[in-house]
Amino acid sequence: MPAASNKRVISCAITGAIHLPSMTPYLPITPEQIVENALGAANAGAAIVHIHARNPETGQPSSDLNLYRRIVDGIRANNDDVVICITTGGGAGMSVEERLAVVPAFKPELASMNTGSMNWGMFPLANKLKEFQFPWEGQFLESSRDFVFQNTFKSMEAMCRIMDANGTKPELEAYDVGHLHNIAYLLQAGVVKPPITMQFVTGILGGIGSSPYDIITMHQTADRLFGKDSYNWSVIGAGKAEFPDATLALILGGHVRVGMEDNLYLSKGKLAKTNAEMVAKMARIMAELDLEPATPAEARRILSLRNAG
Amino acid sequence: MPAASNKRVISCAITGAIHLPSMTPYLPITPEQIVENALGAANAGAAIVHIHARNPETGQPSSDLNLYRRIVDGIRANNDDVVICITTGGGAGMSVEERLAVVPAFKPELASMNTGSMNWGMFPLANKLKEFQFPWEGQFLESSRDFVFQNTFKSMEAMCRIMDANGTKPELEAYDVGHLHNIAYLLQAGVVKPPITMQFVTGILGGIGSSPYDIITMHQTADRLFGKDSYNWSVIGAGKAEFPDATLALILGGHVRVGMEDNLYLSKGKLAKTNAEMVAKMARIMAELDLEPATPAEARRILSLRNAG
Amino acid sequence: MPAASNKRVISCAITGAIHLPSMTPYLPITPEQIVENALGAANAGAAIVHIHARNPETGQPSSDLNLYRRIVDGIRANNDDVVICITTGGGAGMSVEERLAVVPAFKPELASMNTGSMNWGMFPLANKLKEFQFPWEGQFLESSRDFVFQNTFKSMEAMCRIMDANGTKPELEAYDVGHLHNIAYLLQAGVVKPPITMQFVTGILGGIGSSPYDIITMHQTADRLFGKDSYNWSVIGAGKAEFPDATLALILGGHVRVGMEDNLYLSKGKLAKTNAEMVAKMARIMAELDLEPATPAEARRILSLRNAG
Amino acid sequence: MPAASNKRVISCAITGAIHLPSMTPYLPITPEQIVENALGAANAGAAIVHIHARNPETGQPSSDLNLYRRIVDGIRANNDDVVICITTGGGAGMSVEERLAVVPAFKPELASMNTGSMNWGMFPLANKLKEFQFPWEGQFLESSRDFVFQNTFKSMEAMCRIMDANGTKPELEAYDVGHLHNIAYLLQAGVVKPPITMQFVTGILGGIGSSPYDIITMHQTADRLFGKDSYNWSVIGAGKAEFPDATLALILGGHVRVGMEDNLYLSKGKLAKTNAEMVAKMARIMAELDLEPATPAEARRILSLRNAG
Repeated sequence: MPAASNKRVISCAITGAIHLPSMTPYLPITPEQIVENALGAANAGAAIVHIHARNPETGQPSSDLNLYRRIVDGIRANNDDVVICITTGGGAGMSVEERLAVVPAFKPELASMNTGSMNWGMFPLANKLKEFQFPWEGQFLESSRDFVFQNTFKSMEAMCRIMDANGTKPELEAYDVGHLHNIAYLLQAGVVKPPITMQFVTGILGGIGSSPYDIITMHQTADRLFGKDSYNWSVIGAGKAEFPDATLALILGGHVRVGMEDNLYLSKGKLAKTNAEMVAKMARIMAELDLEPATPAEARRILSLRNAG
Repeated sequence: MPAASNKRVISCAITGAIHLPSMTPYLPITPEQIVENALGAANAGAAIVHIHARNPETGQPSSDLNLYRRIVDGIRANNDDVVICITTGGGAGMSVEERLAVVPAFKPELASMNTGSMNWGMFPLANKLKEFQFPWEGQFLESSRDFVFQNTFKSMEAMCRIMDANGTKPELEAYDVGHLHNIAYLLQAGVVKPPITMQFVTGILGGIGSSPYDIITMHQTADRLFGKDSYNWSVIGAGKAEFPDATLALILGGHVRVGMEDNLYLSKGKLAKTNAEMVAKMARIMAELDLEPATPAEARRILSLRNAG
Repeated sequence: MPAASNKRVISCAITGAIHLPSMTPYLPITPEQIVENALGAANAGAAIVHIHARNPETGQPSSDLNLYRRIVDGIRANNDDVVICITTGGGAGMSVEERLAVVPAFKPELASMNTGSMNWGMFPLANKLKEFQFPWEGQFLESSRDFVFQNTFKSMEAMCRIMDANGTKPELEAYDVGHLHNIAYLLQAGVVKPPITMQFVTGILGGIGSSPYDIITMHQTADRLFGKDSYNWSVIGAGKAEFPDATLALILGGHVRVGMEDNLYLSKGKLAKTNAEMVAKMARIMAELDLEPATPAEARRILSLRNAG
Repeated sequence: MPAASNKRVISCAITGAIHLPSMTPYLPITPEQIVENALGAANAGAAIVHIHARNPETGQPSSDLNLYRRIVDGIRANNDDVVICITTGGGAGMSVEERLAVVPAFKPELASMNTGSMNWGMFPLANKLKEFQFPWEGQFLESSRDFVFQNTFKSMEAMCRIMDANGTKPELEAYDVGHLHNIAYLLQAGVVKPPITMQFVTGILGGIGSSPYDIITMHQTADRLFGKDSYNWSVIGAGKAEFPDATLALILGGHVRVGMEDNLYLSKGKLAKTNAEMVAKMARIMAELDLEPATPAEARRILSLRNAG
C-alpha cells in the first residue's frame, strides 16, 4: 500500500556496522544498550527497529547469533509490538552465509536485503578522528579502500529464497539507480514478490549521494520503474543529511529511517544521546507537516508484513 | 572543452568483451578483422577507435599483449591519425593487473578507466540464443550470475597513477550515478585531474538502465557535480538503445560511442556487417541535427589529449 | 492510444500566423500556395496538415472564412485522406469568436485549442530584419510588446463546447507547465474528454523555452498529471530547435510537428523552400530511429479522431 | 548572495487579495488589524512583511493609497527594522497604473513585480463556501472565470523603470516556467538588474501547480537559466501546500513565504488566528533543519536591498 494516508512509518536503526565507538560515547554496543535504545525508539514513535549486533567488549560489528538472540529476546521481553527488522548486510568481511544466518534463526517479519554490489568507502572518515579507542577501528576504515560490498544476482536469489521460506519480507536496500533496475529484474523474474518495500540508502561513498537531488532521482526512477503508489519506499540520508532527506521523503510521500546507524548527531555539533531522541525529532517534523507516525500494527498493514493480521 | 561548437566526437568500439561469436557472424575476432573494422570506422567518421582483443580461434576476450600489439600496429600501419583508446576493463575474470598491462605497453593517448564496482549480469542473454558456437560462451554468460565487476578505490588510484605516468588520459566510464560521485571524490582527492572526460555506460544489468530518462539522470547529475560545460561526456546505450541514446546525447550537448561492443544491429532485425556502417549511420543523424563528426585532431583538442599539439 | 508501436504522427503546419513574408520568399501566402504546400507535405509523410489563412496580397494572418474555404477545398480536391487540422489560435488581435468560426464552418476532425493565457513576444525578431516588405509587419512585431494571448477558462469552455458539438477533436496546445495544469482541471471538470491529445508548443517568448530540458519538463509533468501512456503528445520547437526537439520527442515516445509556421530553415543558414522538405527530413530522422510516419488512417486511430472508422 | 549560510529569510504575506472574509474570521482587514498582524509576524521571525490593503468595511482588495499609508505608518511607528514589501499585483480589475502607484508613494525597499500573464482562476473556491458575508465576494470569484492577470512586456519594463527610479528592488514573482524565461529575457535586455531575487508562486489555477515536483521544476529551471547560487529564491505554496513547499524550499537552499495571503490554515482543519502563528511554525521547522530565520538586517544583505548598509 502506498502512503495514501497521513501515517508514515518511522524505522530506527539502532547501531549499524559503520560508526565506530571512537566517534561517540553514546553508540549502543552491548546487547543491553541496544535493547534499551530499541525500546526507547519504539516508545518515541518508531514502528520498526532495525538491529545489528556488536562485540560487547570492542564494539566491532558481529554476526554472532547469540548476541542477536539476546537483543531480540531483550526487546520482546518488554515490547511484543514493535516490528523487528534484522540486518543481512552484516559488516565488512562477512560472507553471505554469515550475513543471512539470522533469517532462519529468528524468522523476523522484515529483514534488510541488499540489491546490488558497490564499493563502500569509509576511509575518508579517518581524517575526522584524532585517535582510535580500539585497534580494529582504524584498520576497519582503511580496509574499505579495497572493499567491495558484494551482492551478486546469485546471492540475491539465495537470500530471497531463504527469506521467502521463513516468512520474512525483504526490505530492499537500493544504494544507487542501478539497484532499482536490479529490483525490476528480480521482480520480473519472480524472485522478489510484490508488494515490494524498498529503502533508498544514500550518501555511502560508492553509491548515490545524499543530496536532495539524489533522493529525487531515486524516487522518480522508482516511480517510473514500478508505477507510482505501487510500492513502499523509505529514505536513509547519511550523516547530516539524515533529517533533511527524511523530511524530503515525507514531502514526496515516503517513509523514513533515522538512528545511530546512519547519523550520530541530533543537530549541528550536538551528538544524539539516544536513538529515541532522533525518533522524537522525526515525529516533531511529521507533526509540523500534518503527518503521524504509524503504529507497528499500521506499519504491518502498510508494508504487508506476515503478522499484518 | 565542452561541446560548444557543432563538432562532436564519434568513438567506435570495435568488438568489446561482451558479445559472443554465436550472436553474429560479423563480430571482428582476429587482429586482422579488428584492424579492418577499425580502419573502416575511422574512414566513416570515427575520431576514436576503442580496442579490445579476442582469441583469434575462439573469439574469447583476451588480455594477450601480443594480440593487442598486432591490432595497434595494424591500425597505425594504415592510419596514423585516428585516436586509439585501449580498454582496461578487460573481460570477466581478469585481474586489475592484467587489465592494466596495456597502458605501459602501448602508452595510448586514451584508455578506459572504470569508476566503480557493480554486478554485471549477462546471463539473461542466454535465453535469446539457441545454441553456442564455442563451449566457453554459455559458461561465460552463466558465470556472470555470480560476478562482480570490481574497481575498488585502491585499484582506481593505481590505475590513475599508471595512466598519469604514461601520458594516458583516462576515459572515465560511469555505469551508475554513484560512479559519478566516485569521480567527484577522485577529482577532489587529486587522483583524477581536470579536464575530465567521461562516458555514461548504460543498459548493463547491474548498472543504470538505458532508457532516455537514465541518460538524462546521468547528464543532469554530472552537470550538478562538475559544473555545466566543464567536462566532456559521451553516451553508450546498450543494444537497441544505442542510436536513440546517442542521438539524445547529441541533443543534450554530448559526444557518442557506437560499435559492435555495444550493439550488433544496424536497425531492427538487421545485423551490422561492419563497424563502419554504424559510424556512418551516426554521422547521418548528426548531419540532420546540423552537427559534424570531429576529426581526430579536433577530438584531441576537445578532449585535451597528449597529442593535441 | 499511446505511441506503443513504431508509428509516429507527423503534423505539418504550413504557414501559421507568426512568420513574416519579409523573412523568407518561400512562405506560402495565397490559398494556392498553401494548398500546394499542404499536398506536398502529405505526400512526404505528414498525416496531418495544420492550416492558417493569410491575406493573399499582403501575407497578413486572416480569419476570412472564404480564404479557409479555398484552402480546405483545394486540399480535398486532390487528397481526400490527409487529416486537416484548422487553427483556432488565429493571429494577434482576433477575438475568440473570430478565431473559432472555422469550427462550425468546416467541422474539421481536429482543431487547435489553446489552453491558457500568456504574453506572446515577437518583438525581438525585429532586430533580425533589415527592412519590411509590407507596412503591417513591423507594427505586427512591435505590438506584441503589449500583447497578451488570451484564452480564459470561460473561452476555453466555450471552445470545447463548440468543438464537441461539431465532432471536432481539440488538439490541446500547451505553452507552459501551467497549461498542463489547466488541462488537468478541464479534464476533471468534464470540459475536455479523454482520450486527450496535446501539443507542447515551446520557444514562444512568454511561454516555456525550447531547450531539451523544457521538453523533458513538459513531458514528465504530463506523465505525472495524466498517467504515462494515457494521452497523446507532440512537440513543437520554435526556430532552430524544431528538429532537435522533434527528435527528442520521438525518443521519449511522442509525435512531432514541423513546418513553416514554426521554423523557416531546413538546416543552418538554409531556408526551406517547401514544407515537404521539412516533412521529408523528419521522416529521414524517423527511419534512422526505426520509426515510421503514421498514415492518415493510422493517425486517426492513434488520436481517436471522428473518422477513425 | 545565495543561501550559503544557515540563515533563511521568512517573508510573511499578511492578507493579500485572494482570500475572502467569508473564509475565515481571522483575516486582517482594517489597517489596524494588518499592522497588528505584521508586527506579530516580525516578532515571530519574519524579516519581511508583504502588504496589501483592503476596504476596512467590506474586506475587498483596495488600491487606496491612504489605506496603504496607514498600514506603513502603523508598522513603522512600532518597528523601524522589518523590511516592508508592498504589492504591485493588486487585485483583479486594477490597472497597472493603480497597481504601481505605491512605489513612488512609499519608495519601499522591496516590491513585488509579476513577470508574466496568465489566467487566474479562483472560481473553484466558490464550491467550498456555503454563503458569502459580502456581496462582492461571490462576484469576485466568479469573475475570475474570464479574467487574465496581465503583465505584458511593456508593462513589466515600465514597472522596472519606476522601481529603479525609486530605489525599490523588484521581488520577481514567477508563476510558471515561462515566467522564468521572461526574467531571463528581461535580465539579458538590461531591464532587470542583478543580483535578482525571485519568488516561485505556485498553486494558482492558471499557473504552475504546488506539488513538490512543480517546486523542483521551478528550482531546477532557474538554476539552469541563472546559474546555481547566483540568485535568491523563495517559494509560495498555496493552501495546504504552504508548509510542505516551504520546507522543500529550505531543503533545496531557498527562502520561504508564509501568511494568510497564501494559506488560512495552521494545520489540517485548524484556522490560523494570526500571521505570527504561521511564522512561528515556519521557524520551528527551520530549527529542526539546523536553520535560522534571517533578521531584517541579514535579509537586507542577502537580498542586496537599498538599506543593506
